[in-house]
Amino acid sequence: MIYLSETQTAQLISHELAYVAVKEALVAATSSETQLFPVVNAQGPQVDSMFSLKSACTENLVGWKTGSYWPDNHQHGIPCHGTTVFLLSPETGELVAAVAASQVNAYRTAAADAVAVDYLARKDASVLTVFGTGHQAQYEVSAIVAIRPISRVIVVGRNKSNTDIFVEKLIKKGIPAEVGTAQYGCEQADIIVTATTATAPLFQADWVKPGTHISAMGADKVGKQELPTELYPRARLFCDYESQSVVIGEFQHTTNASITEIGKVITSVAIGSANTDDITIFDSSGIAVQDLFVAAKLLEMANVE
Amino acid sequence: MIYLSETQTAQLISHELAYVAVKEALVAATSSETQLFPVVNAQGPQVDSMFSLKSACTENLVGWKTGSYWPDNHQHGIPCHGTTVFLLSPETGELVAAVAASQVNAYRTAAADAVAVDYLARKDASVLTVFGTGHQAQYEVSAIVAIRPISRVIVVGRNKSNTDIFVEKLIKKGIPAEVGTAQYGCEQADIIVTATTATAPLFQADWVKPGTHISAMGADKVGKQELPTELYPRARLFCDYESQSVVIGEFQHTTNASITEIGKVITSVAIGSANTDDITIFDSSGIAVQDLFVAAKLLEMANVE
Repeated sequence: MIYLSETQTAQLISHELAYVAVKEALVAATSSETQLFPVVNAQGPQVDSMFSLKSACTENLVGWKTGSYWPDNHQHGIPCHGTTVFLLSPETGELVAAVAASQVNAYRTAAADAVAVDYLARKDASVLTVFGTGHQAQYEVSAIVAIRPISRVIVVGRNKSNTDIFVEKLIKKGIPAEVGTAQYGCEQADIIVTATTATAPLFQADWVKPGTHISAMGADKVGKQELPTELYPRARLFCDYESQSVVIGEFQHTTNASITEIGKVITSVAIGSANTDDITIFDSSGIAVQDLFVAAKLLEMANVE
Repeated sequence: MIYLSETQTAQLISHELAYVAVKEALVAATSSETQLFPVVNAQGPQVDSMFSLKSACTENLVGWKTGSYWPDNHQHGIPCHGTTVFLLSPETGELVAAVAASQVNAYRTAAADAVAVDYLARKDASVLTVFGTGHQAQYEVSAIVAIRPISRVIVVGRNKSNTDIFVEKLIKKGIPAEVGTAQYGCEQADIIVTATTATAPLFQADWVKPGTHISAMGADKVGKQELPTELYPRARLFCDYESQSVVIGEFQHTTNASITEIGKVITSVAIGSANTDDITIFDSSGIAVQDLFVAAKLLEMANVE
């Protein structure tokens, strides 16, 4: 059994590695050989502590991700969220690896949106508006900046202080960033990324201009919502895994909509943006197949070194 | 993260260790602090290959067991069944250990029946009849021989050759064993253990004499059955975890029966056998709490050494 520690994987992970692995995963997700199994949402002994088990099987990868959330950890200077990915041998079922992936998880989630941006956003998209100022939002911006010639990032946050801090962080990284309102952010944006825990739309549909691409990553549970449903009739809809997206993802709020899995766009089975005026929306509900592919790639890297 | 390999745990495990750990687990299972989460039954990429994720949380232990079954393994001289137990820190949710437990699993399952025998069978029980001649049946006999003064073991099997081989194995271990029919086995037995994959009763209710204890371990899925339901009105019923036993265990075939969790007998909250003529039945459906306790005990042992 190979164990990759958090220190090892944090050194090995990059937006490039995550992009390549997640792109392969999103293609694998469209294969009839791929299966996702029911998610376990379990509780820990501490108040509000919880962990989940998300398992999947593809032609060449079998395993699961455990995500833990122990809210009291922050009192002890330990991250509240923890992630480990486990791989079984597809040939024998034996446990072959445990891959600590807490930081990796942020890259893997951002990579799905970066892939969507790459396949759905205009090539000349230069203004990125991000809703949300949390940990994940930073990774989303970094991943997308690597994919398109972004010259402005507009940050929309609920809390002024957090928004200012986030903008400062981006500027320090050399990313031109500014604070904006939801309306201003939408009107200016070529790309909108939503990375919040919202349970109601973050903006109005009519603020979004033609040709905008939206990647929504916040919704991963029943009841969560970031986008206005009024936008759907004007937009082309894409997701990572349809049967999950319409239950726990953003598209739980659609009815009889035509939704295309992004893997089919990557393999040219389906078309992405038909013309430059299309509004495209990608819902990233987050699938275990992504975790398996990223973990496998990290193991390859670790073996090479 | 501590990893205990199969070689390490196979050296550390014993019927005594398993007995102590499983007894504590069966008590913990009756606590309101203990939670068992939905079982994931997943498929592997190979034909008929499968794996499961069984998770639980007690006051002091959090984690899950992964069981794998890759039927083609036997062609390559590798065991078809594999087990690993994973423990998270109850304080922080971090992964603290992965414990390879394929051989351990047989001890842990036998230990539940040994505990039941200890609390429910007559002290002078000396004739043990075992239904089944597979891998698990051997562990069941060894575990029970350590608990009661067994002077005869009667083996009831469907296949004559397998039954003869099993009897020979027991005799080589110094256990007086013989082949018997189902009726003879029941009529002679003080203790009956069923360790089969049966989906229909293995014997008739009227063959069982007063004062017999029965431990049934085979039923762990909907549709499985080893015991005749006609026996229930004449018997006192016990199990590891009621809500699981009545769904996937032997007691899925009961209706409105009074069933006592064995942990309550261990802690004297409930009584076991009220008098020596009682027929007692224990259904071992197998719970993840057992795995967590055994894994924790193995980790303690490994640290001591």
